[in-house]
Amino acid sequence: MKKTSPSTVVYEPEFMAGLKLIFEENICFNRVLGLRIDRVAPTEVSCHMTMHPDLIGHYGHQRLHGGVIASCMDGVAGLAVMAALGAKHMDEPIAKRLQRFDRLGTIDMRVDYLRQAIGERFEVRAQVLRLGSRVANLQMSFWGPGEELIATGAAAFIVS
Amino acid sequence: MKKTSPSTVVYEPEFMAGLKLIFEENICFNRVLGLRIDRVAPTEVSCHMTMHPDLIGHYGHQRLHGGVIASCMDGVAGLAVMAALGAKHMDEPIAKRLQRFDRLGTIDMRVDYLRQAIGERFEVRAQVLRLGSRVANLQMSFWGPGEELIATGAAAFIVS
Amino acid sequence: MKKTSPSTVVYEPEFMAGLKLIFEENICFNRVLGLRIDRVAPTEVSCHMTMHPDLIGHYGHQRLHGGVIASCMDGVAGLAVMAALGAKHMDEPIAKRLQRFDRLGTIDMRVDYLRQAIGERFEVRAQVLRLGSRVANLQMSFWGPGEELIATGAAAFIVS
Amino acid sequence: MKKTSPSTVVYEPEFMAGLKLIFEENICFNRVLGLRIDRVAPTEVSCHMTMHPDLIGHYGHQRLHGGVIASCMDGVAGLAVMAALGAKHMDEPIAKRLQRFDRLGTIDMRVDYLRQAIGERFEVRAQVLRLGSRVANLQMSFWGPGEELIATGAAAFIVS
Repeated sequence: MKKTSPSTVVYEPEFMAGLKLIFEENICFNRVLGLRIDRVAPTEVSCHMTMHPDLIGHYGHQRLHGGVIASCMDGVAGLAVMAALGAKHMDEPIAKRLQRFDRLGTIDMRVDYLRQAIGERFEVRAQVLRLGSRVANLQMSFWGPGEELIATGAAAFIVS
Repeated sequence: MKKTSPSTVVYEPEFMAGLKLIFEENICFNRVLGLRIDRVAPTEVSCHMTMHPDLIGHYGHQRLHGGVIASCMDGVAGLAVMAALGAKHMDEPIAKRLQRFDRLGTIDMRVDYLRQAIGERFEVRAQVLRLGSRVANLQMSFWGPGEELIATGAAAFIVS
Repeated sequence: MKKTSPSTVVYEPEFMAGLKLIFEENICFNRVLGLRIDRVAPTEVSCHMTMHPDLIGHYGHQRLHGGVIASCMDGVAGLAVMAALGAKHMDEPIAKRLQRFDRLGTIDMRVDYLRQAIGERFEVRAQVLRLGSRVANLQMSFWGPGEELIATGAAAFIVS
Repeated sequence: MKKTSPSTVVYEPEFMAGLKLIFEENICFNRVLGLRIDRVAPTEVSCHMTMHPDLIGHYGHQRLHGGVIASCMDGVAGLAVMAALGAKHMDEPIAKRLQRFDRLGTIDMRVDYLRQAIGERFEVRAQVLRLGSRVANLQMSFWGPGEELIATGAAAFIVS
């Protein structure tokens, strides 16, 4: 298996389009969350989402449900693993790399809630700390208006 | 402050109706998840939800998004804290006890994904391991058809 | 591979002796903690340890360091995985089963501290929730005098 | 309560000496771990420790026990909370600030093990992400020779 250095990876437009289709459309619950991809790199990805009444966790306050934050982190962490695998296996055909998504799974996740999630637009980032042959380790962060750190997270994924 | 022994608590119908309204209606995102209360006791609560296309995490497979499981656990854990506080403060008026919900917050949560969430109906349970004056500790579980344990979780809540 | 039903497993005395040697002697830090095996079953193990001045986390109080609790949980969780693997592979020679310990690794662990760890003798238990071909999921608990639940934990292990 | 901006804080030598005494001597288990303070700032602290046969988790390999890593993280996270509280309450007498250590407690902690802990000298860092009036949130990291990231962690502490 030829490995490409992460820093020199340029994803093909077809890979990016496939990733976008899987993430923003085919994963139905990501549509409910309104997640949109902003940036994809081999060790880091970034998405955003916008406030919507359905996503509110606390009537009276207008803040996001903690589960929305956890869901966004889980989703974006999975995207980051895909981006890392996509870069690691640049020698594989695009379709085969995208199929790797089928074999991903979250082993576990932790979310730390630091501040209330109030605002119109939120950013979710995930960083791949390690991509092993069996397990990937990630850290996630959830940002509010004015670069306010609202929540952090950590996750382990099974890869193959 | 008079404290009632958890084992002798019988919640008033009005308290139960208020809890149901907050949990099933006012917390908007719980409606998206379709969470319904089945049982409320001072140290344990149980809810269920049904599969819906919006909640799917993996097109092709028909399995729930990991974020849905995390969201249900966060929601049901909050309900369990409310139930515990409601039992601890039986001497308070119902409205005041229900207002305690406003001051709850998830400090952090961990979810362990054991098995694929495939099925029509899922049960979510939360148990209060400790209700302190400042922090509540909980364990959650997510069950599929045939009493299959799909995921477990742990959370800490701030209470006041 | 022949699989033996966990409920019918009777470990050979040599397997138990090997497990005890690895756990109580060869894992040097377990000696510092003073961990002793009490019970080993295919899905659950139990150990105990006794208070020692070296293990104190808070001068003035006589309570265990949080790290001691975390260390005991990590150690006992590893023992539980070994017990589960030992039962799953009863058709393998004892030495080969014991060598599986070399390939175990903690992926991650969470510890929840519920109550102060004050006392003379503590019990640590670990339960295998799922033993997959690649990942094992565990829950741990740490008990003080009078069956007081002092801490709970969850961990994922890589197995092979 | 007068609050001092973290960036302008210069700890008194007596505060630093007290912190060192508590951390390196009075917390007995930190002596077993061999933890030494390298740097203390209001939002970040750094310590180091050196390999010792007692701390080995895997005979045959010479790697640290996972519990040692967890213990170091718990310890250094507590130090970081103390440093943050010490900076927040610069208007209080030194002795009073140091006594705040008595009222700290770890609510929970997660550790992610990324790579084997093999080497002679390790560095442990903790960062305070948020210091609230009741809860502090931290991230920790454990580094091996050559700035290799061996493990990461997250913790919540109760403060008062």
